[in-house]
Amino acid sequence: MSKHLTKRSEDYSKWYNELVVKADLAENSAVRGCMVIKPYGFAIWEKIQAELDRMFKETGHQNAYFPLFVPKSLFEAEEKNAEGFAKECAVVTHYRLQNDPENEGKLRVDPTAKLEEELVVRPTSEAIIWNTYRGWIQSHRDLPLLINQWANVVRWEMRTRLFLRTAEFLWQEGHTAHATKEEAVAEAKQMQEVYATFAEQFMAMPVVRGAKSESERFAGADDTYTIEALMQDGKALQAGTSHFLGQNFAKAFDVKYTSKEGKQEFVWATSWGVSTRLIGGLIMTHSDDAGLVLPPKLAPIQVVIVPIYKGEEQLNAISDRLSPIIQDLKSRGVSVKFDDRDTMRPGAKFAEYELKGVPVRVALGNRDLENGTVEVARRDTFEKETVSQADVVTYIIDLLNKIQENLYSKALSYRDNHVTEVNSFEEFKEVIENKGGFVSAHWDGTEETEEKIKELTKATIRCIPNDAIEEEGICVLTGAKSSKRVLFAKAY
Amino acid sequence: MSKHLTKRSEDYSKWYNELVVKADLAENSAVRGCMVIKPYGFAIWEKIQAELDRMFKETGHQNAYFPLFVPKSLFEAEEKNAEGFAKECAVVTHYRLQNDPENEGKLRVDPTAKLEEELVVRPTSEAIIWNTYRGWIQSHRDLPLLINQWANVVRWEMRTRLFLRTAEFLWQEGHTAHATKEEAVAEAKQMQEVYATFAEQFMAMPVVRGAKSESERFAGADDTYTIEALMQDGKALQAGTSHFLGQNFAKAFDVKYTSKEGKQEFVWATSWGVSTRLIGGLIMTHSDDAGLVLPPKLAPIQVVIVPIYKGEEQLNAISDRLSPIIQDLKSRGVSVKFDDRDTMRPGAKFAEYELKGVPVRVALGNRDLENGTVEVARRDTFEKETVSQADVVTYIIDLLNKIQENLYSKALSYRDNHVTEVNSFEEFKEVIENKGGFVSAHWDGTEETEEKIKELTKATIRCIPNDAIEEEGICVLTGAKSSKRVLFAKAY
Repeated sequence: MSKHLTKRSEDYSKWYNELVVKADLAENSAVRGCMVIKPYGFAIWEKIQAELDRMFKETGHQNAYFPLFVPKSLFEAEEKNAEGFAKECAVVTHYRLQNDPENEGKLRVDPTAKLEEELVVRPTSEAIIWNTYRGWIQSHRDLPLLINQWANVVRWEMRTRLFLRTAEFLWQEGHTAHATKEEAVAEAKQMQEVYATFAEQFMAMPVVRGAKSESERFAGADDTYTIEALMQDGKALQAGTSHFLGQNFAKAFDVKYTSKEGKQEFVWATSWGVSTRLIGGLIMTHSDDAGLVLPPKLAPIQVVIVPIYKGEEQLNAISDRLSPIIQDLKSRGVSVKFDDRDTMRPGAKFAEYELKGVPVRVALGNRDLENGTVEVARRDTFEKETVSQADVVTYIIDLLNKIQENLYSKALSYRDNHVTEVNSFEEFKEVIENKGGFVSAHWDGTEETEEKIKELTKATIRCIPNDAIEEEGICVLTGAKSSKRVLFAKAY
Repeated sequence: MSKHLTKRSEDYSKWYNELVVKADLAENSAVRGCMVIKPYGFAIWEKIQAELDRMFKETGHQNAYFPLFVPKSLFEAEEKNAEGFAKECAVVTHYRLQNDPENEGKLRVDPTAKLEEELVVRPTSEAIIWNTYRGWIQSHRDLPLLINQWANVVRWEMRTRLFLRTAEFLWQEGHTAHATKEEAVAEAKQMQEVYATFAEQFMAMPVVRGAKSESERFAGADDTYTIEALMQDGKALQAGTSHFLGQNFAKAFDVKYTSKEGKQEFVWATSWGVSTRLIGGLIMTHSDDAGLVLPPKLAPIQVVIVPIYKGEEQLNAISDRLSPIIQDLKSRGVSVKFDDRDTMRPGAKFAEYELKGVPVRVALGNRDLENGTVEVARRDTFEKETVSQADVVTYIIDLLNKIQENLYSKALSYRDNHVTEVNSFEEFKEVIENKGGFVSAHWDGTEETEEKIKELTKATIRCIPNDAIEEEGICVLTGAKSSKRVLFAKAY
């Protein structure tokens, strides 16, 4: 495959597809719409998982595991949820293969091994989990029940893109049960904030915290809280959602508890999830025409060290000098790769690590050996600095923090420059078509208007921001009264 | 549910099933043969995962993720493997549900949404992975390729038991590719040793390292290396297997590399896996009639502290005294739970933590407060000791090590007492029927004899031990010559 990467300005979508493959993150598989996550991409997911898992546990959640399959009758118990996912369900109907008498040596589905009841491959697990919770919840003492699951789910999407929309994807799904509405709402909002904190502090990806309009809510939710990020091409990405499910699932699955007062009450629920889609967001927030740019906190390799040498003797001298530096970095928790392969020239290595987004590159050649220096290059700005070997460890640790901060502030300033207040539909269309980004506009609150705007501009309501201020205004489309601006954008 | 646990001597199988549910490890789900792993059981799995993952990475492996589904045509490419798993495959045939016109409000599988090619839900991933490796391997520089995946797999088993045999289970599967046969064999043996080390040092479960007889090998393997443990009821448990796959998958999927000499060669392969079945082995190695017994290295809670108090004032005094002890333990990496619930009496708490296998229990009452002592009880021997508060932290850390060692040596001595050398078929039957455990016997090396012995006694060849010595002998069944003893047992 050519090393050349399409420029973002030429074709953003092509750039993305090429980058994901060339940087060894993921590739399409032999199964329609399902991806293979390659080791380098999976290492990013492991970092994401580790941090989120820590944050979930710090907020009192425990992990568990529920079945991959949902019997059809359970799946359809909560009608709105079933309706919302029915059209994209992979369904298991049989449980055995046999030799095909008409096609020697080949296997076919054994028609006698038909399941009595078809099994839906989970597109989300509310149904199977709430059916289980009925047995786990009897008393107010069993509440709150705070559970998370790391799992694969399947949604048979027609148009797929690596990480952003795949038929099978990896995610976590939290499912909690509470005695009161207030507690459940507070939980859903807390998890929205956990997601936002993670996105901003680890992914260096600024997000808008808001609520979804009714038509954009999760099927079966009373409210959906979202975090919305902005990609470099001006399109929004829904990066995580947290749902207040009311008593919908408790009623569908008859999950009640005995209150302190001895009354039987339905339980209140939340669910919340983020997925491997985050990796797509990470790529499209920071990367450039030279390849991936990774924030140090999620980079599988934070520092790569490339010796520049001729012959084994020079390599040994360089390795000896570097060895205590590498040890020191590792002991401070920095992940370092020392690349002394003799099958590749330094320039080619530099290009490879640029493509793979390693935040800091250190090079050391013969002259550095004499001068007691190293060359330190940062991936985000391409700046290079000559640093004394004595200071390089603290220099790098400081630099990793600076890169993390720089990526965030660059993304934030891009995002802030792409939130445009508009007061007419002409302006609205003009911004959506030409500038992109979020459009902050008054909306009359009806689904009809939302639908009409989508038809006319392809922009959807990304969210009603949590920090939206009360403000008299009129809907950009209908002129009807409105008291708040909402954010529209074209979205992934 | 009754707190009473069936005694092991009454009905071992019933004891096991009750314990798994009562100790909150897992339960059956609404899906035939699929289990729900509850938070306490899943926390054990997380500990197992963390240690194994560390060991895999230390031996140079990286994680990746491959699709859940395998197109039928790929699945059948390696014939022996396909044959071996065909009868237990869940198959996806359709991808959409729709409203059923004959049954209002209900959903049915949309007959128009039939897949062109059926998808097998992976029972193991060799097929999809080797189909992917064809694109990843061109040159000897791409080798060895050392990859692991943590995933769920599905085998439609007819008789299932929680953890031991479930239709869906969680596991890891390593899949490696090598330039030479020697390297691949060495890799497969290395992973057998990794599994054995983990079983013995973390699970405190002694295992026999050996090779499978041909009929017991993994479908598609040239050799299967196994670790075999012995349960308290005298039945063996295959706890982990590592396969040398020869060039079978490379040939089936046309995976070749260019050697240093410029020749095109087929690649050599291994695969290896352990699963949630390990939790079943853990339970049946150590637990007793009072409940679960967990080795400290895998216990989600290592120490539980129960204050014995009347009223808030006493509780506060006790909490104040315990707080620095708890902090100290935590800072040394000990997982501690302080259970000050006022809804349950101390005796009931003691019983609960016995049932859940918490290795060390600390109790502190009013008299301890006066005397500067605590009561420390160990789960494995039920011994109690009064320890001064000043010494309790080091006492506990020492005790956790002692418990880990004691569990291993107890299990080892049980196992060693249940390896019986026999020299006639009468003896063989007598030991298998009455004493149980492993029977070490000469076998003529034929599949017919193996099959006949299984028919007559239900015992199978668990392995040909790695350390079996060359010894002249005659087959216990046929009297034919044999040069090595092999281990037989009834097995899970």
